[in-house]
This record gives sequence, structure tokens and C-alpha cells, in this order.
Amino acid sequence: MQRLDHQGVITLIMSTPERFNALSEAMLEALHDALTEIADDSSVRCVVLAAEGKAFCAGHDLKQMRANPDKAYYQTLFARCGDVMQAIVHLPVPVIAKVQGIATAAGCQLVASCDLAVAARSARFAVSGINVGLFCSTPAVALSRNVASKRAMEMLLTGEFISAEQAAEWGLINRVAEDDALDAATDELTASICAKSAVAVRTGKAMFARQLSMPLDEAYAFAGETMACNMLAEDVGEGIDAFIAKRPPQWRHR
Amino acid sequence: MQRLDHQGVITLIMSTPERFNALSEAMLEALHDALTEIADDSSVRCVVLAAEGKAFCAGHDLKQMRANPDKAYYQTLFARCGDVMQAIVHLPVPVIAKVQGIATAAGCQLVASCDLAVAARSARFAVSGINVGLFCSTPAVALSRNVASKRAMEMLLTGEFISAEQAAEWGLINRVAEDDALDAATDELTASICAKSAVAVRTGKAMFARQLSMPLDEAYAFAGETMACNMLAEDVGEGIDAFIAKRPPQWRHR
Amino acid sequence: MQRLDHQGVITLIMSTPERFNALSEAMLEALHDALTEIADDSSVRCVVLAAEGKAFCAGHDLKQMRANPDKAYYQTLFARCGDVMQAIVHLPVPVIAKVQGIATAAGCQLVASCDLAVAARSARFAVSGINVGLFCSTPAVALSRNVASKRAMEMLLTGEFISAEQAAEWGLINRVAEDDALDAATDELTASICAKSAVAVRTGKAMFARQLSMPLDEAYAFAGETMACNMLAEDVGEGIDAFIAKRPPQWRHR
Repeated sequence: MQRLDHQGVITLIMSTPERFNALSEAMLEALHDALTEIADDSSVRCVVLAAEGKAFCAGHDLKQMRANPDKAYYQTLFARCGDVMQAIVHLPVPVIAKVQGIATAAGCQLVASCDLAVAARSARFAVSGINVGLFCSTPAVALSRNVASKRAMEMLLTGEFISAEQAAEWGLINRVAEDDALDAATDELTASICAKSAVAVRTGKAMFARQLSMPLDEAYAFAGETMACNMLAEDVGEGIDAFIAKRPPQWRHR
Repeated sequence: MQRLDHQGVITLIMSTPERFNALSEAMLEALHDALTEIADDSSVRCVVLAAEGKAFCAGHDLKQMRANPDKAYYQTLFARCGDVMQAIVHLPVPVIAKVQGIATAAGCQLVASCDLAVAARSARFAVSGINVGLFCSTPAVALSRNVASKRAMEMLLTGEFISAEQAAEWGLINRVAEDDALDAATDELTASICAKSAVAVRTGKAMFARQLSMPLDEAYAFAGETMACNMLAEDVGEGIDAFIAKRPPQWRHR
Repeated sequence: MQRLDHQGVITLIMSTPERFNALSEAMLEALHDALTEIADDSSVRCVVLAAEGKAFCAGHDLKQMRANPDKAYYQTLFARCGDVMQAIVHLPVPVIAKVQGIATAAGCQLVASCDLAVAARSARFAVSGINVGLFCSTPAVALSRNVASKRAMEMLLTGEFISAEQAAEWGLINRVAEDDALDAATDELTASICAKSAVAVRTGKAMFARQLSMPLDEAYAFAGETMACNMLAEDVGEGIDAFIAKRPPQWRHR
């Protein structure tokens, strides 16, 4: 995996294109290590999860799995995969999937697990484990929290691809870009996030997933307390003053 | 705030257009008092939440917040705001947002918190606190229970506006009306609700939000019991007899 | 009710078209018995829920309900109806609704409760109990787990029909077929499912609904364990070997 740092934007590039960037043990470990490192780095503003070659990510490494026909091995593998997905969900900064080619099985789960996703028009998405006799159970967790139940179930049972256009209509991704404009579309999102107060972005990332699973009253209590703390950040005073004065804000915490 | 009563339909009109109907302490208190009063009035059939001027509601009153730089103040403010939103959710009758102009931050949360929403074609929606360094945490609670996660997250992180058309496609609002037909589109919904049995409408309003957060088996147990009680209302006998006789029903409980 | 068996696909046909296939006590019992029998039959691959005549299903049998004005009767009736709906959700194999004509009230709930749904272009959907003074509380449970909240609430409060096209856009059904192509569109889905490994399909059906109501970490733990067990099925070895060799798999468990 490659890592590019540019003005607070970390781009993680899955770079085993000859294996369609399969989530081998090595790839999962690399992702886990990179995310752990980023989680502790207060200078990071957001993360782009990208990939090299014709595929974004084709899911688990089937050859490696077949070579280890052992239940304990699989339990460890899927637990590790679940950890990586949850590390994305709980990373202190937003993660944007930048998708070209195919995103299948756990590759589609990666897209579903990110906060935002942009895809090239020619990109395609499937949870295709069913085609090899393996229902995409862990991808189903992420997918069913992104798209309507019957749509998730259709993808899981048929294993068929959907287009980027369809993925956007269903809410699995945010935006479709022409193939040669995928970089530009991703940059637009990262630039928008980097122009914001870092403390506000981190506040939002930390609260969003947590409140989702709470009952309404608990969610409001948690969100209200979060927002009261956010109000005490220096940035908010500056932000409001700038807004009232109709000038651009000068954030302190960048 | 103004209140109009017309044949069981209460229209609450936020009327500080010069402040874009900001949710100041006074506005929150006025909303809270109005909702509390309506909750106890068995003659009310439904509520329309409307606004005067170029904005539906621009969210919290930033100047007032800036003038009170105190954590306890903010905790109280956001708790009060959460109470108002939950008072809408738990009001015994349906609440319809009638949206013109902009609905931003807690103003967008108001729309999300209503049972139904109609908007003028030129209306626009944003959760724009992020632009002043304040992530819209409490609006996120309502928004993420209305639209798909990635769409909510995009609005929250970028602070960008979406059109009424887009809001309808995403499920944040029910209907888009031409600007000069907003009254008519709202009246159509209130007329439809007022033509129904009051006891049935109140039954539905009371059960819908509660069952949403229950596991499936609990939700069915609760809904089955609710429906058995509903069956004992005089209106149902009349409704079924009228349906079988192909004549309009004459509701008792209006 | 009729039952057709064809190569592992069971088609249950509601066949009281003169009563619009109303969910009378007898119909609910027939559905319950059929589902219980299918649940124990390991040769079944998937189920199609179909109907005869101009209506798919018009919901509860209003005349029968009116003839039994007794709370205990209604409690039993709605509990039984909830059992049938949950029997669909928890059946070990996927259930596909094949919808023609109207699907109203508990008939619409049947569609919402199935894993997948295909409808004729002329089919229409409503939760219309509100028109007879009876809020569709139990249908609301299924409907609100399929479509966005404001859309569910609009259907429940107004009782109005939506088209098949609209139902597909909202996620209540998967596919719209021309009226004379409804059989073909359904057969395409059953053929796709029957071409898959039976153990994988049953794994997916058993895990999907259960994980939906779990918090993210629990869902991942459950899905990871499920997937590790699925990996031990003979079919997966064959599936992966076939995939790598670029040949069609030969499933053992059919």
C-alpha cells in the first residue's frame, strides 16, 4: 500500500493491482496499521482510500483463503476484516472512497464503510461472494446500513453488478464523476472538508456513527452535549464573528 | 410566533423574518409552549409549521449564542432545542412543515423532525453549522433518520445546499410545489388528514415513532395491541360499514 | 391457497380472488401452515408468494373482523398476522413477492415483509386502513423498515395509492415488469437464486434480518462467525476452485 500526504489529506492507495487489490492478510494488516497511525495524528484532515489498476478492490483473497482450510483461520481473518472496517467508521477524520473499476464483496464493503464515496462512471459494485458459495455476510453489515433492505438483499442473493449511477441513486456512493474527472471530483470533496474547522470536522466524525444506533432521546442528549462542547472551541467564536462580518473565517486549529 | 386555527388545523407561523426566524431562546420557548398547548387539545387534527419571509428558519440565533459564551448556557440551549424537536415527534397529531426559502442547520432539523414536509420549488436545505466551525450535531440526529447515511454525512461535512427537488428524491421532504402553489399543496395534505377518523390519525402518530426503534418482534407486539385497541373505536365500525356499503363514512370523533 | 413445486421453487398462490385474497383467518392459517412446512423442508430453494385475480391482497377481511367485535378476537388476529409476517422474515429461504393488481393494508405489509418483490407495471400499493378509521399499525412496522420515514408516514396518513414505478424508486419493491412479463421477471430471480449454492443462500437468509437490528460491533461479530462457518461448507471449496479455474461450479448441496 502507498501513502501520500498532501496538506493534511492522506491518500492510501491499495497497490496490488495484479491481485485486484484483494484484501489479503498483508493488505488488511497494511490498512489496519495505516489507519491506526492516522488515528493518532492530529494534523490529518481527511483520508482518501484509493486503488491502483483496473479494480478498486475485489474483496478477500480467495486463493489465500482456500490455502488455509481451517475454521480458526477464517474466524481470525473475518474478525480482522471487521476491525479494519470499524477502524474506518471510528477514525477521527472522514474517509472518502475513490472508486474506479470494480468494488466487489469486501471491496464493496470498504466503499460502504467510508463516510463518503466518489466513483468513476465506469465503476461497478457487487457483493458477489454468493457466486462462489460464500454469502457476503460481513459486507451485508455495511451494505444494509447504506441502502434499502430489498436492494441490499437483491445484490447479496444475485451477486449481480450495479453501475455507479445506480449506486448513487441508492445512496451507496455520493457522486459519479466522468472517468477522467475522478481525481477532480475527489479533490473537490477534500478541499471542501479542509476549508472547514478541523475541530468541527472531528466532532462530527466522532458523533455521527455513534448516535445512529441510539434511541432518539439518547441520541439528542449525546448530540446536545457534543454540540455544547463544540461551542467552546475557539474556532466557533471566529466562525460566527466571520459569518456576521461577512468575511472568510481564519481557523486556529488546522 | 403567530397561531391560526381553522377547522382543527393549527398553523404555527414563525414570524421574525428579519432574523430569518432564527431559533432564539424566545422562538424555542414560543414553539415549546405552542406544542405543549396543542398536545392537550383534543380538537386539534393536525399542525402546519410555517414561516414568514424569505427564510423558513436559519437555525440557532448565532448572535445570541455568541453573546453567552458559557458551557452551561449551551447545554441548556441545546437541551431545550432537543425538547422542541422531540415534542414535534411525540405530538399526538401529525405536524407538516411548509417550507419556503432556506431551511438551514436547526431549521433543516425542524423539517426533518416533522411527520410530513412540503416545500416550494425554490426552497433550499443545508446543515451549514460546519461553515462557522460548529458541526450540526443535533440536526444530524434528525437528518440521519430521514435520509441515507452518506447523503446526511455529505450535507453535514460540506455545509452545501440541496434543492427542494433533491430533498424530495432523498426523502427529506414529501412534495415539491411550485412557489405559488405551496399553500394549495399543504392544504391538500391537511384536508386529506382532516377527512380521516381523528382517533385513527392519533393512533398512528402515537405508534409510528415508537415502533421505529424497536426490534421487529417487539414492534409487532406493540403494533398488534395498538391495532386491537383501534378496532374498538366507534369510527372503525362506521368506517367498515361505509366501505362495504360504498358510501362516505361519518366519523364520530372529530 | 394453492402450492406449486417446481425444482425447489415453491409458489404459494393466494386463491380467493373473489375476496381480493383477503387475509381472513383461513388465509392466515393456510399461509402459516405452508410456511411452517417449508421451513422444515431442506429441498426448498426459494418461495414465490403470488396471487390469483385482480388483486394481490387487499389486507384483512373487513367483514369477518366486523362480525367479531371483541378485543380478544382482534388481539389474536393481529398476533397471528404478525406471526405470519415474521415467519416470512425468518423462513430459512428467500421469499419473493410477485405482485399484480392492488396490494393494500396487510397486503402491502406482505410485500414489505418479503425479501424481494417484483410487480407488474399496473400494480398499486397502499396502506389504506386509515380510510376505514383503522390506522395500519402492523403494516407500518414492515413498511417503515423498507422505505424512508416521511414516505411511509404519507402513505399511512393519506391512504393513497402509489404506482409500481414509485414503489421501486422508494425501495418497497425491487423490479417493475410489464404486465405480461411478470412471470418472466420472477422466474429470472428464482433462476438466479437456484443457480447459487443452497447453503450460501440459506446462510444469507438466516443472517440478514438478524444483523439489521444489532449495533455495528455485534453485527460484525455475528457476521464474521457466520462467514467462518459458511467457509467450511464443501460448496465454498468447489466455488473458489471453479472461480479460479474459470469454470461453472458444481454445487453439492442442492
